[in-house]
Amino acid sequence: MESPEPLESQLRFVLEADRLKTVLRQSPISDGSRRENSAEHSWHLALMAVVLAEHAPPGTDLRRVGAMLVLHDLVEIDAGDLFLYSGAGALARQEEAERAAADRIFAILPAPQAAQLRGLWEEFEERRTPEARFARALDRLQPMLLNMQNTGGTWMSHGVTLDQVLPNVDMIEEGSASLGAYARAMVATAVDRGFLLPAAR
Amino acid sequence: MESPEPLESQLRFVLEADRLKTVLRQSPISDGSRRENSAEHSWHLALMAVVLAEHAPPGTDLRRVGAMLVLHDLVEIDAGDLFLYSGAGALARQEEAERAAADRIFAILPAPQAAQLRGLWEEFEERRTPEARFARALDRLQPMLLNMQNTGGTWMSHGVTLDQVLPNVDMIEEGSASLGAYARAMVATAVDRGFLLPAAR
Repeated sequence: MESPEPLESQLRFVLEADRLKTVLRQSPISDGSRRENSAEHSWHLALMAVVLAEHAPPGTDLRRVGAMLVLHDLVEIDAGDLFLYSGAGALARQEEAERAAADRIFAILPAPQAAQLRGLWEEFEERRTPEARFARALDRLQPMLLNMQNTGGTWMSHGVTLDQVLPNVDMIEEGSASLGAYARAMVATAVDRGFLLPAAR
Repeated sequence: MESPEPLESQLRFVLEADRLKTVLRQSPISDGSRRENSAEHSWHLALMAVVLAEHAPPGTDLRRVGAMLVLHDLVEIDAGDLFLYSGAGALARQEEAERAAADRIFAILPAPQAAQLRGLWEEFEERRTPEARFARALDRLQPMLLNMQNTGGTWMSHGVTLDQVLPNVDMIEEGSASLGAYARAMVATAVDRGFLLPAAR
């Protein structure tokens, strides 16, 4: 059987990706009216990469950051979104499910491009490059911003404590010193306002 | 009064942008379950810019394409989304409303960045650069793809005819020869399948 035209495969991938619009996250959108979906979340991060570009370390390739951000959640089409503060067992099962999803979804593309875009997804997951660390910093910062707009949002609804959030602040700092400093001050404010529980004893 | 810190202004802009998630478009998402919002639509276009990059004319600056695509619909926060096949009067009023929205929304940013990002929005609207023409081609192609998944979607629900759609095919062709050729064949198929009315007499 002949392979389909590259453009046909690419458009099949684009239509498969559309399903990300139906994957719900825990975070509320800023007006609190409903939960956010992973497609609009990905857009919000890509917008942040444009607006906050100056907060990336010098020399960061922002085109690659943008590509990572629009691709990074596609695996949730099969694996669903897991709440950030889930237990270790659930996180390990999620990682396996996301890997299987990546195998299926990126393979829709023509072979060389499948490898290239899957590579970007892995780069994001591994957080070894400045691009991946900056992209991940945005992915951690955005739900914090939404929680601050919603009197604590998922922090309050899930009883999250400061010591659970601080590793994410560290992750933001690894991607961007200025965004990390901002996030650190913000979570302190969140505790002061009663939007986030102080560290568990 | 002192100006706020640049980062404070940038994050106010990011949170203002969140409201785009509540602006509904006419197009259904691919499973037909609900209408698409402008934030997830913008994500879908940014993803298409990554996946279909090879269909842009050589030398196209794809970082600028991506930035335009994530920004291009922000004016709809104030102006709302207007259906593509609206009358000339409605289109002129929409243009005015979008300009006023751009005045308000981009001004949230620190002054030099406000001018820069508003410039990208204007570049998209004016379609004079290869980047703007490629971005606009994707913006025209995406709802056609969704309509093909939904037995005609908005074409059928609004009684759109082939001669109304062909100028959009021309616009796709101006941005990308290969995507234009694909779109031209697709609308012919749409007419054959009864997803799109033939040209009005």
